[in-house]
Amino acid sequence: LRQLASELESIDLRSDNEAPVAPEILAAIERANRGAADSYGEDAITARLRAVLCERFETQLEVFPVFTGTAANALAIAQLAPAFGAVFCHPQAHLATDECGAPEFYSGGAKLIPVPGEHARIDAEAFAAALSACDADDVHQSLPAALSLSQSTELGSVYSPRAIAELCASAHGAGLSVHMDGARLANALAHTGCSPAELTWRAGVDILSLGATKNGALAAEAVVVFERALTDGLARRRKRAGQLASKMRFVSAQLEAYVRDDLWLRLAGQANRAAAALAAGLRGVPGIELAHPVEANEVFVRMPSSLADGLAKDGVRFHRWPGEHALYRLVASYCTSDAEIERVLACAMRLAA
Amino acid sequence: LRQLASELESIDLRSDNEAPVAPEILAAIERANRGAADSYGEDAITARLRAVLCERFETQLEVFPVFTGTAANALAIAQLAPAFGAVFCHPQAHLATDECGAPEFYSGGAKLIPVPGEHARIDAEAFAAALSACDADDVHQSLPAALSLSQSTELGSVYSPRAIAELCASAHGAGLSVHMDGARLANALAHTGCSPAELTWRAGVDILSLGATKNGALAAEAVVVFERALTDGLARRRKRAGQLASKMRFVSAQLEAYVRDDLWLRLAGQANRAAAALAAGLRGVPGIELAHPVEANEVFVRMPSSLADGLAKDGVRFHRWPGEHALYRLVASYCTSDAEIERVLACAMRLAA
Amino acid sequence: LRQLASELESIDLRSDNEAPVAPEILAAIERANRGAADSYGEDAITARLRAVLCERFETQLEVFPVFTGTAANALAIAQLAPAFGAVFCHPQAHLATDECGAPEFYSGGAKLIPVPGEHARIDAEAFAAALSACDADDVHQSLPAALSLSQSTELGSVYSPRAIAELCASAHGAGLSVHMDGARLANALAHTGCSPAELTWRAGVDILSLGATKNGALAAEAVVVFERALTDGLARRRKRAGQLASKMRFVSAQLEAYVRDDLWLRLAGQANRAAAALAAGLRGVPGIELAHPVEANEVFVRMPSSLADGLAKDGVRFHRWPGEHALYRLVASYCTSDAEIERVLACAMRLAA
Amino acid sequence: LRQLASELESIDLRSDNEAPVAPEILAAIERANRGAADSYGEDAITARLRAVLCERFETQLEVFPVFTGTAANALAIAQLAPAFGAVFCHPQAHLATDECGAPEFYSGGAKLIPVPGEHARIDAEAFAAALSACDADDVHQSLPAALSLSQSTELGSVYSPRAIAELCASAHGAGLSVHMDGARLANALAHTGCSPAELTWRAGVDILSLGATKNGALAAEAVVVFERALTDGLARRRKRAGQLASKMRFVSAQLEAYVRDDLWLRLAGQANRAAAALAAGLRGVPGIELAHPVEANEVFVRMPSSLADGLAKDGVRFHRWPGEHALYRLVASYCTSDAEIERVLACAMRLAA
Repeated sequence: LRQLASELESIDLRSDNEAPVAPEILAAIERANRGAADSYGEDAITARLRAVLCERFETQLEVFPVFTGTAANALAIAQLAPAFGAVFCHPQAHLATDECGAPEFYSGGAKLIPVPGEHARIDAEAFAAALSACDADDVHQSLPAALSLSQSTELGSVYSPRAIAELCASAHGAGLSVHMDGARLANALAHTGCSPAELTWRAGVDILSLGATKNGALAAEAVVVFERALTDGLARRRKRAGQLASKMRFVSAQLEAYVRDDLWLRLAGQANRAAAALAAGLRGVPGIELAHPVEANEVFVRMPSSLADGLAKDGVRFHRWPGEHALYRLVASYCTSDAEIERVLACAMRLAA
Repeated sequence: LRQLASELESIDLRSDNEAPVAPEILAAIERANRGAADSYGEDAITARLRAVLCERFETQLEVFPVFTGTAANALAIAQLAPAFGAVFCHPQAHLATDECGAPEFYSGGAKLIPVPGEHARIDAEAFAAALSACDADDVHQSLPAALSLSQSTELGSVYSPRAIAELCASAHGAGLSVHMDGARLANALAHTGCSPAELTWRAGVDILSLGATKNGALAAEAVVVFERALTDGLARRRKRAGQLASKMRFVSAQLEAYVRDDLWLRLAGQANRAAAALAAGLRGVPGIELAHPVEANEVFVRMPSSLADGLAKDGVRFHRWPGEHALYRLVASYCTSDAEIERVLACAMRLAA
Repeated sequence: LRQLASELESIDLRSDNEAPVAPEILAAIERANRGAADSYGEDAITARLRAVLCERFETQLEVFPVFTGTAANALAIAQLAPAFGAVFCHPQAHLATDECGAPEFYSGGAKLIPVPGEHARIDAEAFAAALSACDADDVHQSLPAALSLSQSTELGSVYSPRAIAELCASAHGAGLSVHMDGARLANALAHTGCSPAELTWRAGVDILSLGATKNGALAAEAVVVFERALTDGLARRRKRAGQLASKMRFVSAQLEAYVRDDLWLRLAGQANRAAAALAAGLRGVPGIELAHPVEANEVFVRMPSSLADGLAKDGVRFHRWPGEHALYRLVASYCTSDAEIERVLACAMRLAA
Repeated sequence: LRQLASELESIDLRSDNEAPVAPEILAAIERANRGAADSYGEDAITARLRAVLCERFETQLEVFPVFTGTAANALAIAQLAPAFGAVFCHPQAHLATDECGAPEFYSGGAKLIPVPGEHARIDAEAFAAALSACDADDVHQSLPAALSLSQSTELGSVYSPRAIAELCASAHGAGLSVHMDGARLANALAHTGCSPAELTWRAGVDILSLGATKNGALAAEAVVVFERALTDGLARRRKRAGQLASKMRFVSAQLEAYVRDDLWLRLAGQANRAAAALAAGLRGVPGIELAHPVEANEVFVRMPSSLADGLAKDGVRFHRWPGEHALYRLVASYCTSDAEIERVLACAMRLAA
């Protein structure tokens, strides 16, 4: 029994941030460590990263590697919104709830305007209503400047390309630019089977936070700019935010390995499959119900606190979701194994019995 | 001849930022990559890092790992100076000239007040004069809030512990706190033979930017706080700046390996010795003169542009120093070899002949 | 008929900001214009202002005159909330909707957290729930720092002293400070008959934006600080915001005249009575209904757009309230006359007939 | 004797900010106080102000009235320089030394770069050198964005139109815009006899802080924009800074009266003449020497502290200039009388005898 408990201790479903670095990415860092290289992004690996991203996204783009998703999001927002601007996002968006005001900081005080929608997807009608409630000529209000979408969302759902296109069209129609928080973009790609272009610029996205850290990197994210005019000043913003890596080759190497040979899709696919298996199993456990569609690598369930406590006691680690009673989040990562999922399910069934 | 030229191509004295990661530090990253670990600094390695720093600095301190020296400096300044505050620093300090306004950004607009001094060391009398020119009760002026010292300095010189203590006493006497930019602190430690405590808190430093990236790390710096009251709000500032690593164990592992077993001193000692050998040799080259004392790993020389061009042609890479005619900087790193130094000197002698 | 129309043209119920300066206040400005006086608030009138406010509010307080309500609010918020802080306010609060992000600007990026409640009064239970959803130890969230109440509210309702005390107790219990936006405090005083102390510091308010401009001044507002510790840095914040009047005697003179001899209460009482008469009359007009309790000088009505258009055509000027269909705001000022109210009512009755 | 002393007490040469409001301007405020008027600058007087300024400056321009010179300067700077920008100005410029970091605040952290020059006039060669030391492509440096000139300067000197044109040409050649701090522009106009156009946009100035408060207004300054593209976002910046007057007619009325009928030139001419008479007289007093050319309304003298103390004792009020030993400033205003000047001179002669 003790052995079982100890084995269970290792089942960590708290976040994909707890996962280790994927071997392919660590190997890329090691390969990058050969002799001297130009600093601050002038190196050959960063140049290759841009090329591979252009190829994968099927367009000319600019890429600005940074260290964290918070930085990528906040830099992107600061590019789109002036200090006196307003940015529309879902009230549950990561940038609204989990970045301690980073978008406000980087932009010099832009305002986030919450737009509701089920499962953390912005509702198109609600967005249209929010837009029409604004008067761009009224200097007493912040200037509507940008829309920010999360793909996949903070609650594990995914936008269809059509849904993205509809929101982007509304935004552009009102003179706004569109940001996509792609901290878990790979999971959305794996879920939809869409190409990177389809889920981003072809649907109208102007600037993307491309995440890798939650999906196997050590610390590597990037601001990807599809609309050239939006790069203006971005290099200096990155520098003064302390996000310009002196030895950038090691950040770029992670990102290059991540997208080259479709590693990002394989890792995300594995995480998504683990989450799907977990969801499928949990759905069958008496007393547990799924709170949101499981379309990426996150599973949100409602269950009695006794059951949640029991799972925790048995070594399954996960978070109670703040702000709502009896809601819990379990996150699969690229290295969550079938055996782990089976154990969690067996444990849940036993506790619910 | 062609072969010689091609070998010379590899002599990179532009910056210690071009150097690769030290094997010991890469190994520490690899060791840290075992299974899941708590995210955002709750992991065991980060806890160990704090312990080893307390031991090395012989005091209770708090450590906040971040990704870049710019971030460490700007966070530290924001802790010491309110938005309406003033920070005294040398006009050649990195935070004044090379961070694109990061201290102003992080602090919300604090003002840097230049205080002169030879070789980028702040002159004690000039600082006293600057302080006495301020009137803390005059709301038209920014509030004098902090002194920032660079150790070693931007021009390769080093402060003695006594010089630091004198400046800190002036600062504290006027109600200011003291920041040390220690991007190259290890070089100063290696040069002086002082203990970390002697060059920092025992001399009066309240908060330190501890650098590792220029001296063998991949991307690892830290804000080290000696004066507990100064940690207030720092964790949130770091988060909203996008400097809170989700997988912090990999940043902390670099820093732990850096200070444990005196690796930092060994690496810095090697860089310092290479710079000293380079300086000693260049001093003997007709037409070349040293512009600043070589006390760390940087060599500043004045030489005819023909000579500089010749060296560059022969594959020695280094920077012309902006703002001054015919001034050049050559930086040795922990992996600059004796053979490289010998080749540079042979080349210079040949060109000067 | 033409004459009637032209007379009606002068009925301006758009805002109390359209009203002229009260004769008593203009006279005070003229009296202040005798010879030289100390600048930047060192003058005798500013000293007298502080004394008369201490006397009226029955406590030792500090007063910082400024030019606008936006500045008073934003300065007060910046005193209470750090750049990484959160401020709870009603989603319809003036500082959330009508100041183009001034609180975010002055505070360096603090976040406004909306807390709902009927008639723009924050609901005590909703506030308690919002507080308990926060985790002050979670660095991913902004630090809960302040509660901001508007008295009277943006929708013309008024908090009872008991309601204020309950909210302040919750706030203080959670370590937050309390700001009151008193752009129309005098209207609330006139409505409740309470003393200034009862509606502010005795109920738990720490810092007050005291408005005068909407109630008869030319341009005069003040940050009034009841909790001494909260004055720290405020003088410099005011200066760097461009809100430190060089000839402050003329701002202070307005405020002194405003509170001395109860002028503020007389003017607000007149405006409140006009609004009450207007509300009483409109309530009797078929098709018109009051949307919010009329407790200050603002009347919110729902009416058919045909009726609204008819009134406008007849020279009654007022605003459609943004964001809600068929909602209109009519604001009485200290100089709205009985005759004007009668004409508006007669006009409405005629149109509704 | 007592009577003489008491009369002398009223000689206030500390600053033109201590002066009262000119009768013509107070009368304009009173005239503006007729019934209701559109708020927030939609009123007829503000429209007239724009028209009269276009006529006086002989060009199409936009005007944004604000309350203080600090606000006008900081708004103008924020229009010209991004948060990551650099602004060149004289180290003694008001915006560098006397605004507690307002330009940094409004711009989100832009950096002021000091450029020296005699008598607080920026030296053209020094500016060219400062420009050439910048590398606009180097993201480690702030982006060179603007030049700011003060006319008249902080030390009472005046730029010739030719000197302005030369500096503006350098600035524009390097892609920078030009701001003029015209807190005392009228004094420069009166001194040079130039037209407003000649000293501003015809010489290359893009944006002007137009001061009136120091020269007879109550509280009225304006941002005047000659280059239309530079108005973008300015209205919202003014609002969120708390500088949008709700009852703007009273600010605009001051400015209109100020420029209409050349009142500004008459008032400034009187102040200049008083300063010139003071300077001429003091020059003849043994032990006193003029420190700077007296071209506007400020007189800087070096004198023994015993003489300065004697004058103070006899009721002449003026400031010791900070940062330099034995330097004193005496400022004449539009209402400094011949009799006052005579008394000061008689007093000085007596003390020096």
